[in-house]
Amino acid sequence: MARKQATYWVGFDLGGTKMQANVYSETWKVQGQRRRKTKGYEGVKEGVGRMIDTLREALQESGVMPSRLGGIGMGCPGPLDLQRGVILDTPNLGWKNVPVKAMLEKEFKCPVVIANDVDAGTYGEYVGGAAKGARSALGVFPGTGIGGGLVYNGDIYHGTRSSCLEIGHICVQPDGPLCGCGRRGCLEAVCSRLAIASACIEAAYRGQAPHLLKLAGTDLDKIRSGILLQAIEEGDKVVERILIDSARALGDGLASLINVLAPDVVVLGGGLVEAMPALYRREVEARARAASMAAFRHQFKLRVAKLGDDAASLGAAAWARRVVVEHGRR
Amino acid sequence: MARKQATYWVGFDLGGTKMQANVYSETWKVQGQRRRKTKGYEGVKEGVGRMIDTLREALQESGVMPSRLGGIGMGCPGPLDLQRGVILDTPNLGWKNVPVKAMLEKEFKCPVVIANDVDAGTYGEYVGGAAKGARSALGVFPGTGIGGGLVYNGDIYHGTRSSCLEIGHICVQPDGPLCGCGRRGCLEAVCSRLAIASACIEAAYRGQAPHLLKLAGTDLDKIRSGILLQAIEEGDKVVERILIDSARALGDGLASLINVLAPDVVVLGGGLVEAMPALYRREVEARARAASMAAFRHQFKLRVAKLGDDAASLGAAAWARRVVVEHGRR
Repeated sequence: MARKQATYWVGFDLGGTKMQANVYSETWKVQGQRRRKTKGYEGVKEGVGRMIDTLREALQESGVMPSRLGGIGMGCPGPLDLQRGVILDTPNLGWKNVPVKAMLEKEFKCPVVIANDVDAGTYGEYVGGAAKGARSALGVFPGTGIGGGLVYNGDIYHGTRSSCLEIGHICVQPDGPLCGCGRRGCLEAVCSRLAIASACIEAAYRGQAPHLLKLAGTDLDKIRSGILLQAIEEGDKVVERILIDSARALGDGLASLINVLAPDVVVLGGGLVEAMPALYRREVEARARAASMAAFRHQFKLRVAKLGDDAASLGAAAWARRVVVEHGRR
Repeated sequence: MARKQATYWVGFDLGGTKMQANVYSETWKVQGQRRRKTKGYEGVKEGVGRMIDTLREALQESGVMPSRLGGIGMGCPGPLDLQRGVILDTPNLGWKNVPVKAMLEKEFKCPVVIANDVDAGTYGEYVGGAAKGARSALGVFPGTGIGGGLVYNGDIYHGTRSSCLEIGHICVQPDGPLCGCGRRGCLEAVCSRLAIASACIEAAYRGQAPHLLKLAGTDLDKIRSGILLQAIEEGDKVVERILIDSARALGDGLASLINVLAPDVVVLGGGLVEAMPALYRREVEARARAASMAAFRHQFKLRVAKLGDDAASLGAAAWARRVVVEHGRR
């Protein structure tokens, strides 16, 4: 009897700016990789064409025949219909009701599984990063908003049709600042990178952050995590203060989530954390421990994400394997 | 070949005031039932003796031989060590480090599985009550505190060693009232029955709730859910106002939890809800829907708990079966 041929899994990360396809062996070694700009504004047909080209080239680079594919996992911005494999609506791309699962299954003749991009990133950190092997791992990714994901007993925690873990939209200040969701005082209205950046340009405008003013002016669109770090290093105390307050507010919100979910590992990732891991992590962790209940305070590890841009691709591939092989679903 | 003999499961609910043992068939029909006062103050040895007597008598009533038991499930007040089956510390009973699993396994020669009492109650509502068959069900039980439990894909969601879902301790008002946990503005500091009762006796003391004053005086210990309802029916508008505000605050907190957990069913139970299901449920539901994100707003059903005092016994028995038979663990 012939030895069973190895199976390969593809992880695809569909981002607002760029897309990435990674071909993985069963032990999650990268066999091939391709990136492209997403250019969502060119429309769905063009966009899906670019996805297919990117997938084909990554497969070519890997030397893996499409017939050897166990499946393709896709990390996509939401909201999604997970069961039908449809991107319902992505403000970042301007796409609506795109049946990516059906479109890619037709093209590649293998199962396609879609997941929320933050869920995929958290799952990637669980499979091969900062939360490797954890029984339960909460992913926290402060960025323009605040993304969240949860892995519990080896599975992505999700709703029946959609993803969930909208941790940026727990209300932490009933009369707090307006949030993009329409409520007041959501965690992300208080401490997302967007909230930080707007507080910093206010300070720059008032003349209290001269280095930031020189580096980036007062245009919100120009404020990147790296620039905030540089302004701090050059001496803008108020920028540091805003960041510390923000990390503490996130830690307080995290404490509420820890009281509800009791994760073993909290993975902290995203651009803000990558730019200043020590400062940010220290403040978040101190508050998350101080503000959570005694029973949970020392039951979790807080770790900075390890996989960066590859987390969502790895997570999507591994999740596709989990769904197809272990759950026997598609 | 002889027909396989039926297996029976026992559910035990260890409460602060009373204990209850129910013997169940495999289709969760009650075959025998016994209750006793808990009298935790008499100490551990006496207390465990009462548990064993209660279990024995329920078995006798059912006519089920101990050899036919698949296992015993115990719903216990926390904190617990779920893996070792130990009650770590129960303020209500004054017990510390009681290895109930080992003690009862020795006595009854069958697997014993312990669960947090609120988790057991939520699981009971999932097995045979208001959340029957739901993919994910969030139990919310406002009482002295606010208990929470979550069933996800047929399992109780819990931490590695302990239970979790401490939904009473999400922070909803950073500068709010002091909570028993030491923080400020926890959900239960704002809207537990204890918070309601103390606001009501303040009003009674001020002369704004004359009916309540006549019914119960100004002793916090005398304020029961039924008395609050009676005061409202007799015309204490301020008591009704306090209850409505409290239900709305709970609905707002619930919205945050819905954004994180996306449950299919929210089960609302406990004495306050049982005393005035229509009023309380209406206010909670309206706010939970209005304050949750558009993607989740219409994805959940909110239901009043059905099983009352039997929820934890049924849930404990069914959870024991799940752990012993389906997970193959003990």
